[in-house]
Amino acid sequence: MIKAGIIGATGYAGGELVRLLLNHPQVEIVWYGSRSHIEEKYSSVYRNMFRLVEDVCRDDNLAELAEQADVVFTATPQGFLAGLLTEEMLSKTKFVDLSADYRIKDVGVYEKWYGIEHKSPQFLAEAVYGLCEVNRAEITERTRLVANPGCYTTCSILTAYPLVKEGLIDVDTLIIDAKSGTSGAGRGAKVGNLFCEVNENIKAYGVASHRHTPEIEEQLGYAGNCSVTVSFTPHLVPMNRGILVTEYARLRRKADGSLPTWEEIRAVYDRYYEKEKFVRLQDKGVCPETRWVEGSNYVDMGFVVDQRTERIIMMGALDNLVKGAAGQAVQNMNLLFGLEESQGLELVPCFP
Amino acid sequence: MIKAGIIGATGYAGGELVRLLLNHPQVEIVWYGSRSHIEEKYSSVYRNMFRLVEDVCRDDNLAELAEQADVVFTATPQGFLAGLLTEEMLSKTKFVDLSADYRIKDVGVYEKWYGIEHKSPQFLAEAVYGLCEVNRAEITERTRLVANPGCYTTCSILTAYPLVKEGLIDVDTLIIDAKSGTSGAGRGAKVGNLFCEVNENIKAYGVASHRHTPEIEEQLGYAGNCSVTVSFTPHLVPMNRGILVTEYARLRRKADGSLPTWEEIRAVYDRYYEKEKFVRLQDKGVCPETRWVEGSNYVDMGFVVDQRTERIIMMGALDNLVKGAAGQAVQNMNLLFGLEESQGLELVPCFP
Amino acid sequence: MIKAGIIGATGYAGGELVRLLLNHPQVEIVWYGSRSHIEEKYSSVYRNMFRLVEDVCRDDNLAELAEQADVVFTATPQGFLAGLLTEEMLSKTKFVDLSADYRIKDVGVYEKWYGIEHKSPQFLAEAVYGLCEVNRAEITERTRLVANPGCYTTCSILTAYPLVKEGLIDVDTLIIDAKSGTSGAGRGAKVGNLFCEVNENIKAYGVASHRHTPEIEEQLGYAGNCSVTVSFTPHLVPMNRGILVTEYARLRRKADGSLPTWEEIRAVYDRYYEKEKFVRLQDKGVCPETRWVEGSNYVDMGFVVDQRTERIIMMGALDNLVKGAAGQAVQNMNLLFGLEESQGLELVPCFP
Amino acid sequence: MIKAGIIGATGYAGGELVRLLLNHPQVEIVWYGSRSHIEEKYSSVYRNMFRLVEDVCRDDNLAELAEQADVVFTATPQGFLAGLLTEEMLSKTKFVDLSADYRIKDVGVYEKWYGIEHKSPQFLAEAVYGLCEVNRAEITERTRLVANPGCYTTCSILTAYPLVKEGLIDVDTLIIDAKSGTSGAGRGAKVGNLFCEVNENIKAYGVASHRHTPEIEEQLGYAGNCSVTVSFTPHLVPMNRGILVTEYARLRRKADGSLPTWEEIRAVYDRYYEKEKFVRLQDKGVCPETRWVEGSNYVDMGFVVDQRTERIIMMGALDNLVKGAAGQAVQNMNLLFGLEESQGLELVPCFP
Repeated sequence: MIKAGIIGATGYAGGELVRLLLNHPQVEIVWYGSRSHIEEKYSSVYRNMFRLVEDVCRDDNLAELAEQADVVFTATPQGFLAGLLTEEMLSKTKFVDLSADYRIKDVGVYEKWYGIEHKSPQFLAEAVYGLCEVNRAEITERTRLVANPGCYTTCSILTAYPLVKEGLIDVDTLIIDAKSGTSGAGRGAKVGNLFCEVNENIKAYGVASHRHTPEIEEQLGYAGNCSVTVSFTPHLVPMNRGILVTEYARLRRKADGSLPTWEEIRAVYDRYYEKEKFVRLQDKGVCPETRWVEGSNYVDMGFVVDQRTERIIMMGALDNLVKGAAGQAVQNMNLLFGLEESQGLELVPCFP
Repeated sequence: MIKAGIIGATGYAGGELVRLLLNHPQVEIVWYGSRSHIEEKYSSVYRNMFRLVEDVCRDDNLAELAEQADVVFTATPQGFLAGLLTEEMLSKTKFVDLSADYRIKDVGVYEKWYGIEHKSPQFLAEAVYGLCEVNRAEITERTRLVANPGCYTTCSILTAYPLVKEGLIDVDTLIIDAKSGTSGAGRGAKVGNLFCEVNENIKAYGVASHRHTPEIEEQLGYAGNCSVTVSFTPHLVPMNRGILVTEYARLRRKADGSLPTWEEIRAVYDRYYEKEKFVRLQDKGVCPETRWVEGSNYVDMGFVVDQRTERIIMMGALDNLVKGAAGQAVQNMNLLFGLEESQGLELVPCFP
Repeated sequence: MIKAGIIGATGYAGGELVRLLLNHPQVEIVWYGSRSHIEEKYSSVYRNMFRLVEDVCRDDNLAELAEQADVVFTATPQGFLAGLLTEEMLSKTKFVDLSADYRIKDVGVYEKWYGIEHKSPQFLAEAVYGLCEVNRAEITERTRLVANPGCYTTCSILTAYPLVKEGLIDVDTLIIDAKSGTSGAGRGAKVGNLFCEVNENIKAYGVASHRHTPEIEEQLGYAGNCSVTVSFTPHLVPMNRGILVTEYARLRRKADGSLPTWEEIRAVYDRYYEKEKFVRLQDKGVCPETRWVEGSNYVDMGFVVDQRTERIIMMGALDNLVKGAAGQAVQNMNLLFGLEESQGLELVPCFP
Repeated sequence: MIKAGIIGATGYAGGELVRLLLNHPQVEIVWYGSRSHIEEKYSSVYRNMFRLVEDVCRDDNLAELAEQADVVFTATPQGFLAGLLTEEMLSKTKFVDLSADYRIKDVGVYEKWYGIEHKSPQFLAEAVYGLCEVNRAEITERTRLVANPGCYTTCSILTAYPLVKEGLIDVDTLIIDAKSGTSGAGRGAKVGNLFCEVNENIKAYGVASHRHTPEIEEQLGYAGNCSVTVSFTPHLVPMNRGILVTEYARLRRKADGSLPTWEEIRAVYDRYYEKEKFVRLQDKGVCPETRWVEGSNYVDMGFVVDQRTERIIMMGALDNLVKGAAGQAVQNMNLLFGLEESQGLELVPCFP
């Protein structure tokens, strides 16, 4: 059994990790870290776990945890892990970090967008960006530190990745309009996230300044082997879970001057995703919807070729707490330990 | 592998059966019945099942289905199964009926509350009321026909059962105020169930006339060995899943004239439910909430003893599509085939 | 023009007061009190008021406010007004208190249920309980202090009032099961009121201990001229506005031994409410729903006579921020200044 | 008093017209047309109108209605009014059509996008496109036929109008990502609009094919004096009311090669909207949100200048049933009769 520790176990992503790991046949959770609930029973915070988890919450003692656990999941605020991680810890256990601390290779970019100093840039080179469908080859039993991708970024990157990589779209025209359920905003007690503030409302936020932007740009830049600058606009939707991205880009004409057809583009997607268990390309004419992936690790995708505007409209949907956070973390863990990648993640989406 | 057929597979309860049976290690679904979607791919109706179910929907041919399946689940309108069931079918396969057709032993009561003629009353005596925690001994490999209890009734009965059986409350004073998510209203296209009609609203309906009333009264009557008449008021709540019942009854005084304490009543509940996997009695001071059971087969319960009014307020919460329908049907199926009762039902509740 | 000051103007009830008073032809708001937003523009807190309100928020200086305003509305936590109110202030201006400080005549009952000391019990005798439909005669231009009723209590009391007063029900059997939208929980930043905690959930809270209980008991006791003890159970519903109460009581038989008919009970309701602008008795067979009163000052009522259980099930619905708070406060203000009672309150309910 | 008739009075837009006209001091509703509820009391369909409207619903007899009414509002399906309208009717009464029948001047474009034949193209030239802030001069007491703009289009056009007109953006790059509450989908009983299908979900629909696209293109084409082709993607959001549009376009550089600043663009917006009562430009850094306009006739706007991508992100929010339908219809009516444009529309947005 793999011994897993979770720091930030009482946040929404942490809670989802618990749900998934309880179902994982090869994992045992040995540490429920929650600074704000030390000594409280975990199941008194998340009562869905009543009679399923008997442990109490513990302090965030990373050093001790590194001794006890085979893998540590940090579902913590930005800067937390970067401020504590040491070579000694990395020599003892593996880390899957759900924060942004090791996602961006350029420490200057990180510090500019996140507004904090990075305390351990020496580990940036070693950290692997854990977008399994793209970076699978680098996530191995030798990997010690995985930077688990963000929820918006997972959805945004995967949806555009094949077209950027194959040069089918003009990357300069790429616009990502994203919509997220409210669990993405976390469990902090803020007026802006109260029921009455979110319900019966939709708004954009972080326009032209959201922190997931550079992560998207870096990864799509690797794909396209070019510098990428995108417009990324997140919106808050009155629902618990789910992210939908609507992406717009100008299609490049083919050598004969015509636009690629839906079928030609589909063939490109298939080349990358046909064998991917967790990517489901929708049939022609079907738009992905967040309800169809809820509770599961799937990313659903679809697209429309618009001859009038010469644009492609790509859409991607995932559950922000599963493929956008905890599910992807488990997927990474499976790779880190040489397990079947989908183990513990065979979750049938739950509707309604 | 047990071969299962589902009639009414594209209703909400039918869809939930599919979700649960796909996860069941010993079941194979051989028939997705849906009169309104014949020859359509099941996954084109419920797109959460995309790439998980390749079958098309089939007509409601019960006779043929009885040949092919080891167990038939009927998630159908009232009167459907009663109108078609024959001794020959029962000799070939087992039936778990999610409608009310065989729940009420007195055909006159059935016909009065449901307003339709019962076409096969000859099977009423044989049918077993499938409330596993109460009737487990009668649900065996010899049972051919299970009347799967209603969603409101499962929650209402189980919450009051130990106290009625032990005579701790004055049954004449029992009032059940129930609140349900909207999936309980089914997937029919009705104006009253449109998003804008349900959202931002709460209402009572079927006041003093809801069809689940006689089912509750009959079963609690068996428990208390007396005639039971209750006030039952359902309410429609703007959420997808979940039922909460709040039950009020006058407590009987003990021989010494005092009221029983919380601890004494808890001991009675424990006598019945301590070993029940799917019943979770909450700690003192904790009220059950539907969010903590969502997606799972649990019934959560709690109660308050009110010395001021000499009443007990009992509360029960379940997921109407799982323990209130499909989950309980699978639980019954497990008993019918001598499997572990919880197989395929080890679902961790999903929050948020 | 009546000069009005509001303390607690950035809470939900305070915000609703602003909405209503802006529409009132005879009122000018001179003071937007909000301790937590001093010197901020009011419309930067409530952006619905952008370009409608230019004022900044001010501190809670009651003494100065008493100089400037003809009427002061206090939408403040329990104990606030009781701790500051003086005879001098009362000699200068009128107070409509939306907290519970002056609702309960018995200071011991107040202190027991609210768990705080009452700092100015000397004003309790003078304070008028501002349930206009019941106490209209006492709310006059000579009244200086109005205790504006609570949201649950307004709905609970008005729904049962005629039957209690006329002795049609056995008061000892009265059970009130109440359901409220989330704005009733206020705008404080608490985890329990976050969107993801409230959405897709229903729960009871404050079972047998909610602070509105003694207020209901006191007022119904005046009506029935007897001591009243009720079971009152509030529930939190995932919607912004609205309260629905479902009340159960045993009907008293008539002299001839029969139960009163629906029509006979309706006649009693009509005697009290037929001329009340803001009380709408529904037709036979129609249950009140919160959506039909949203944004308005109406209380909708309906009831069912259940011959089987010999009970009446009464239902009442209102908008907790209007008739349950700000609307009723304006209704009281109108009476205090000899205006038409419905002025500024001719709000057509907004659906959907 | 202006006598108003409504055809389609039991749809959501029709219901909102009733709410607004009841508050209008110079209007009397003389005809509640609803083909599906003939002879039913209007208030039995919309119970918020209980005791406010005593009329019964009537058939859609346009000829008779033209005799009785000074103005007829048609909140009807596409093709309805075009199929019935005659010169005789127009000679007797004014029409404000909330459908698309007379919005698009080119009958070929209409027939292509709507898929139906236009039965009275002879009135297209006369019809005035009723976007008051743009076309006010043409909506006069001599106007007989107003094509009331669509909900998405009102929001989309007004948000981009000043920049298109002044040539500040490259119109070819304009992308409109729109999000709408569910009342925009109407009150028809469709599975796709059931509560459980819409709740906890977001989806795009009508991608690259939505019927509001040519209307936006035509009007922006007039503004820019050029041919306009836009990408327009509507999304369905789980809320009752509200539309938010997020619009992306490349900014044109100034003569000196630099991008215009936020302040410079704001000055352009102000030139068009500063005196507009119903357009509220937000302060720098503030994004419009649908909750701040709910129930009112306001359009809130904001924008961000993104130096990185050289794009402007414009946002607009309105209540789809008010400024997006009934409110704008009343605004047009006011102009048609020479009344104050805002009469009956002084609605303070209702939050929460």
